[in-house]
Amino acid sequence: MTTNLSTLTNGLRVVTHEMPHLETVSLGAWVGVGARHDPAPENGIAHFLEHMAFKGTAQRSAQDIAEEIEGVGGDLNAATSLETTAYYARVLKGDEGTALEILADILQNSSFDAEELRREKDVILQEIAASRDCPDDVVYDLAQEAAYPGQPLGRTILGTPETVTAITADGLRSYLDSRYISPSMVLSAAGGVEHGKVVQLAEDLFAGLGCVECGPSNGEKACYRGGVTASARPYEQCHVLIGFEGPAYGKPGYFASQVLSGLLGGGMSSRLFQEAREKRGLCYSVYSSVWGLSDTGVMTVHAATGPELADELLDVLSDEIRRLAEDGPCCAEVQRAKAQLKAGLMMGLESSGARAEQMARQLICHGRLIDKNELIAKVDAVESEDVRQLLETMIRGEPTVAVVGAGARSQDHAQRVSRSFRAAAA
Amino acid sequence: MTTNLSTLTNGLRVVTHEMPHLETVSLGAWVGVGARHDPAPENGIAHFLEHMAFKGTAQRSAQDIAEEIEGVGGDLNAATSLETTAYYARVLKGDEGTALEILADILQNSSFDAEELRREKDVILQEIAASRDCPDDVVYDLAQEAAYPGQPLGRTILGTPETVTAITADGLRSYLDSRYISPSMVLSAAGGVEHGKVVQLAEDLFAGLGCVECGPSNGEKACYRGGVTASARPYEQCHVLIGFEGPAYGKPGYFASQVLSGLLGGGMSSRLFQEAREKRGLCYSVYSSVWGLSDTGVMTVHAATGPELADELLDVLSDEIRRLAEDGPCCAEVQRAKAQLKAGLMMGLESSGARAEQMARQLICHGRLIDKNELIAKVDAVESEDVRQLLETMIRGEPTVAVVGAGARSQDHAQRVSRSFRAAAA
Repeated sequence: MTTNLSTLTNGLRVVTHEMPHLETVSLGAWVGVGARHDPAPENGIAHFLEHMAFKGTAQRSAQDIAEEIEGVGGDLNAATSLETTAYYARVLKGDEGTALEILADILQNSSFDAEELRREKDVILQEIAASRDCPDDVVYDLAQEAAYPGQPLGRTILGTPETVTAITADGLRSYLDSRYISPSMVLSAAGGVEHGKVVQLAEDLFAGLGCVECGPSNGEKACYRGGVTASARPYEQCHVLIGFEGPAYGKPGYFASQVLSGLLGGGMSSRLFQEAREKRGLCYSVYSSVWGLSDTGVMTVHAATGPELADELLDVLSDEIRRLAEDGPCCAEVQRAKAQLKAGLMMGLESSGARAEQMARQLICHGRLIDKNELIAKVDAVESEDVRQLLETMIRGEPTVAVVGAGARSQDHAQRVSRSFRAAAA
Repeated sequence: MTTNLSTLTNGLRVVTHEMPHLETVSLGAWVGVGARHDPAPENGIAHFLEHMAFKGTAQRSAQDIAEEIEGVGGDLNAATSLETTAYYARVLKGDEGTALEILADILQNSSFDAEELRREKDVILQEIAASRDCPDDVVYDLAQEAAYPGQPLGRTILGTPETVTAITADGLRSYLDSRYISPSMVLSAAGGVEHGKVVQLAEDLFAGLGCVECGPSNGEKACYRGGVTASARPYEQCHVLIGFEGPAYGKPGYFASQVLSGLLGGGMSSRLFQEAREKRGLCYSVYSSVWGLSDTGVMTVHAATGPELADELLDVLSDEIRRLAEDGPCCAEVQRAKAQLKAGLMMGLESSGARAEQMARQLICHGRLIDKNELIAKVDAVESEDVRQLLETMIRGEPTVAVVGAGARSQDHAQRVSRSFRAAAA
């Protein structure tokens, strides 16, 4: 199994991981722009463009695109996140040329037909409505808004019905021309594939990509604020979330934040699972998660329970966070969280899709590929006191507390929980 | 890569797929009982037992179980379906002994501590509430109830708050003793693992399993009925579902039903995606799915839209179904659906977790392992007219129509859609 990286004449990076024992190939194009780069009046444009890429080019109708990739048994999908947009396919070995050709076409020759644009707005309005019917999405969207108020990171990836409705074909075209340029993009493939063949195909297929940054810069720096947000909804459960600012992905403390999230709420042996679910039976799922962006990061804990138990759940989550910041984790907890992170890395290397994505993200975020052993060494280097200090620093900042669902009375309690962190920090 | 099957002295089947290029192992125990075997007053007991397996044994507390598996970076999970219950782990190569030991312990020596039982009821009540807050779960649960009214298959896997509250430690113990017996179970492992080692370990570790069927038989045969069901809920969207009885998994027509589901609503090139989303912009997601059980099966199509569009969406779904049953699919559609099924099979073979599950399910459902080439030949044998005839037969039966969410006025329209199928069949 070998990893190879080449840079095409136009600056596009092509990375492959040859896994000769596999009969399938995962490949895709990752673009280093996402929803946080949306201009405010066009909130949702990165995601809208991702949809419109499937709606036809000069050569292919929307139906042609779908039929061509699915005709060889492949599938093609795309996803927009805060800082990246990805277009990826999985096909049988030997069909990578078909997938690459379609990817190259939809990323360079979209026609943005007016009728298709109008219909796709309706599809996205339904996607927004579906997201509003999903309690998990609602609580994270509200928390993000409270954490980064009035900023790109505080807005949703999908946009609002108003901003989506306002997006035009010209807007999409100019976004594409200025953003989808070769130095910001990575073509990544893993599985039963040969590096030389991918490079050769890509050199031709992606020759039309612009290579000069000609749009606005990548926008405003994030300024985490935090705050309390609550929304009464007709749910059976009440969702509660507590978050703090964490390290950006290149910053010291980033790997400690991953260990912290793991031992706090990453698995069945984690503190929150043991206390909230196993000892108290308060909830079915309770998770901690941490995401790092280029200039900020957030660690959140989230769980849901009956409205009459929401205050107790909020107290349990905040008490556990505080206790961990005071006493620090024991060595066995740190060891377990590290073992899980390292095993997760190994498991990811065995999936062609996960591997293709990992390589592309490393190139976009860090400008280089990071060896497995370097990642493992960084995880191994995290010590108990690093985790404690990181959390202590985190909770000195303003918390983000979100309460959504049945029992809006928890808003007052959310305020108290928020104040209790601020009082301890003062 | 080799597949081996052995039967232990007590009748337990052990199957492995050695994938020597992998650094991880997926393994688990699959039991041939599930929610449809729950006695009515104990609806939810199969799922409750799956939860209680993690709550401690004579040797290990719940916390010990979690810490031991996660201490080696592994994870352990379980899932209850209508006819099977699965307990599975993923660990690094070399740690399969740890995973097997824990699996064997939790499946044979659960202590069903009263205090743990009481708390786990609260956890499951929250799981039920979470499911009631998930529109997709709600529409499928209601459709299942309409399709199999008053029968085990018409009840939910989680049970109701009333039946779950009534479950006792004695009930769980007797369920375990009578159901978790070696002839009904399969131990399956795939990845960086050796068959001989797994067999040797399992021979010792699972020696305590009962091997005589001593409980009630596997319960009543399913009798698909169908019907119309509607529930007004405070959602932004209205979910609509149309279903018909399909073939059981061993029956002729089963592979044709998979091709049918694929070309009707399986991907971007499918009829429903093209008509409902691409041509009309009515919805974000529209799917067809087909599941086969031992004595029945169901094919469903499902989508969600705004309440004012729900009637139109129902008409589009039912018109497309009828049109396909009349004209049949064209050759290219059948070819695409077959290519996707075959590629999906190849992709599944590359994941140790998917492969371990596939082998276990084949042994439980068919009593034998089924070679990839046999599966591919069965898919290849499906012809356009098989698909048309199957669908024509399906829609001569009573449809299941479910409407859930905003716009309960669609109930009348659902009745009309249901009647239109019955009128055409008459």
